[in-house]
Amino acid sequence: MEKVTWKPGTMLYPLPAVMVSCGAQPDEYNIVTVAWTGIINTDPPMCYISLRKSRHSHGIISKNRDFVINLTTRELAFATDWCGVKSGRDFDKFKEMKLHSAKADKVKAPMIAESPVNLECVVTEIKELGTHDMFLAEIVAVHGDKKYLDAETGAFNLAKARPIAYAHGKYYVLGDFVRKFGFSVRKKKKGKAKKRPGKK
Amino acid sequence: MEKVTWKPGTMLYPLPAVMVSCGAQPDEYNIVTVAWTGIINTDPPMCYISLRKSRHSHGIISKNRDFVINLTTRELAFATDWCGVKSGRDFDKFKEMKLHSAKADKVKAPMIAESPVNLECVVTEIKELGTHDMFLAEIVAVHGDKKYLDAETGAFNLAKARPIAYAHGKYYVLGDFVRKFGFSVRKKKKGKAKKRPGKK
Repeated sequence: MEKVTWKPGTMLYPLPAVMVSCGAQPDEYNIVTVAWTGIINTDPPMCYISLRKSRHSHGIISKNRDFVINLTTRELAFATDWCGVKSGRDFDKFKEMKLHSAKADKVKAPMIAESPVNLECVVTEIKELGTHDMFLAEIVAVHGDKKYLDAETGAFNLAKARPIAYAHGKYYVLGDFVRKFGFSVRKKKKGKAKKRPGKK
Repeated sequence: MEKVTWKPGTMLYPLPAVMVSCGAQPDEYNIVTVAWTGIINTDPPMCYISLRKSRHSHGIISKNRDFVINLTTRELAFATDWCGVKSGRDFDKFKEMKLHSAKADKVKAPMIAESPVNLECVVTEIKELGTHDMFLAEIVAVHGDKKYLDAETGAFNLAKARPIAYAHGKYYVLGDFVRKFGFSVRKKKKGKAKKRPGKK
């Protein structure tokens, strides 16, 4: 394997491309798209978003100390891209993208109703790193769109929502299922093929 | 859109599933798989990984203050899963998974030769958050496998490596290309179809 070396850069992929909604009341509501986001702790559940100081949402979130992460889909790809390029100083992004705000349970920021999953987040710390400030946050509530619940099992089927990911300047839909976490060590069930009702 | 509410959790998807390699010399080399990773700053390029204190790699990276993030692919899915489940206290993961270490340029930790992209990282801070400690790091060098360079344009084609993503307990390959970042505001080139050599 022959390697080519580039100057240091942010080539970590695939990343989520999420719409972050913020604002304490409707005339302040805004949406910003970020790929600089991730989970930083399991319990308590914590995540982060990194934003440039120049972003309109930076000021809103710094003041209100909360935001909502809204997962995106193939259907939301245009809005996802547009909300990452345009500024809330110039546009009412909910209105322009025909998105609907929904009241969150525990934070002031609105949720995007069209998103399959919404994470309500409360900022615990803002860290200045250089071009971006990192907003560390605790996830205080999670909502999912009922239409992705499996009618039989009740399991949430995110793949059905056709989530998108960001990789190297491009958006992709999530593709084929490979395996479940832990598959490399899962023991095959012996004699499963022979099992019949009433037999153990 | 009807929403169902869950208790707070880490439902941010899709996430990268990367193999993190560490160790200052061959008998210490180890690999741990994480999805709790992301970019936190563009310039200087910075990322993080979050690890439980109980992980063997936690001790190694705390001591050496560096690691390498190795992106994963469909072909590396088994090793990716296995290195996330097993412990380096019990196994030489490079040997067990038939992976090859390659010398990094600027850090002590080895790179995984089979990975399409390697990010050399130097720890700048370790933050205790609860179950996990967050290792903030500067990306000091990036390498890519030459076989994914387009012969004509020289552009790196990560999609060709079939990167995998983690979503809700499952691995998926990256699927269909949607559009490029910024597509929502890109102007269509007028008369492009009519353009002929020699005409402007």
